Amino acid sequence: MQVSELVRRSGVPLATVKFYIREGMLAPGQPTSPRRATYDESHLQRLRLIRSLGTAAGLPLSRIRKVLDVLDAPEGSVQDMLSRAMAALSVETENETATDELPEGAFPRARAATVHLGDGYRPRLPAIALLENALAAVEEAGIPATPERLRVYGPHVRAMAQAEISEVESRDPVAAVEFAVLGTTLYEPVLNAIRRLAHQNISADSRRPA
Amino acid sequence: MQVSELVRRSGVPLATVKFYIREGMLAPGQPTSPRRATYDESHLQRLRLIRSLGTAAGLPLSRIRKVLDVLDAPEGSVQDMLSRAMAALSVETENETATDELPEGAFPRARAATVHLGDGYRPRLPAIALLENALAAVEEAGIPATPERLRVYGPHVRAMAQAEISEVESRDPVAAVEFAVLGTTLYEPVLNAIRRLAHQNISADSRRPA
Repeated sequence: MQVSELVRRSGVPLATVKFYIREGMLAPGQPTSPRRATYDESHLQRLRLIRSLGTAAGLPLSRIRKVLDVLDAPEGSVQDMLSRAMAALSVETENETATDELPEGAFPRARAATVHLGDGYRPRLPAIALLENALAAVEEAGIPATPERLRVYGPHVRAMAQAEISEVESRDPVAAVEFAVLGTTLYEPVLNAIRRLAHQNISADSRRPA
Repeated sequence: MQVSELVRRSGVPLATVKFYIREGMLAPGQPTSPRRATYDESHLQRLRLIRSLGTAAGLPLSRIRKVLDVLDAPEGSVQDMLSRAMAALSVETENETATDELPEGAFPRARAATVHLGDGYRPRLPAIALLENALAAVEEAGIPATPERLRVYGPHVRAMAQAEISEVESRDPVAAVEFAVLGTTLYEPVLNAIRRLAHQNISADSRRPA
């Protein structure tokens, strides 16, 4: 397809398409003359991915770039790629990397929480850092996460995550990583909305006379 | 306590405290002289609530005001108040109210989803509108919520919500509503972080040789 069709079908403006090509985030088209090139479905899909990560998932450009780097260097198994992509989603600084070795004494609330969450919750960067911040906020607001609550959350969230990951693993590596990256971020609002709907229903149902 | 102590202990600047009083979001202090007043723990707690709703939960002032209105007019049962407070959290416009009557044909994705989510998911505003938007975003990104996935989510999320609400119902009405409002919003990042940690662990574990 011509670049004009790529722009129309992706909804990404021409100047932005050119920017992504200059930045190495989108492969150049196949040249057909000195001033023309054609694009295919892979270009369209990449633009849709960039747009979803940016607008729907709200990732900054620097992080989108890191996710794309993982996709563009498909080394190792699907699981290796998944692990690197998940890390790219949340890594805040250059020095922070996904690792099993946590700094001594870091993330005290989150580490303590993993004990109550139970099996399948080894502390790992970067998620453990997100959890620490979230737990600090609820503590500050006077509604700290109790061990009882964490013991309820742990197995339910793990069961959902397991079902999500099993959908991913049946795909080819690059598709799996795209799916996982979008799924992790874009399903957060879905799950949050389902939880609010459950809260509303439980509150409303308990108002009814028995 | 003097206003200076209220400022120090709440971390809310004096000009902001005065603004909240002018706006009716915070009760005036008890006058001790024509130019002085004293404040008590209830003032401090209200300021902490406003701050948590604003900074940690990220609610705009207009919505914080609606939540406070529910707290300041404690009519009906705890469940009534909870239901009104939950609605205040997400209501976007003046005309939008929590109701069981949905406009014909509105929220098609979310209504269809409730069938797969199962028991305890009657479509209700405002959560159903949030769910519709979230489902539209995943559909747009090419990873629509499958019936299989929704059938996994439904019971797990309901079980967690049930445990959360039961913690709330054992409190006095105003405390229950404060707890529920903060819990709904501030626990979203906690649950999202736990889910990411589960994803990371599952990916990492499946990399290990069996």
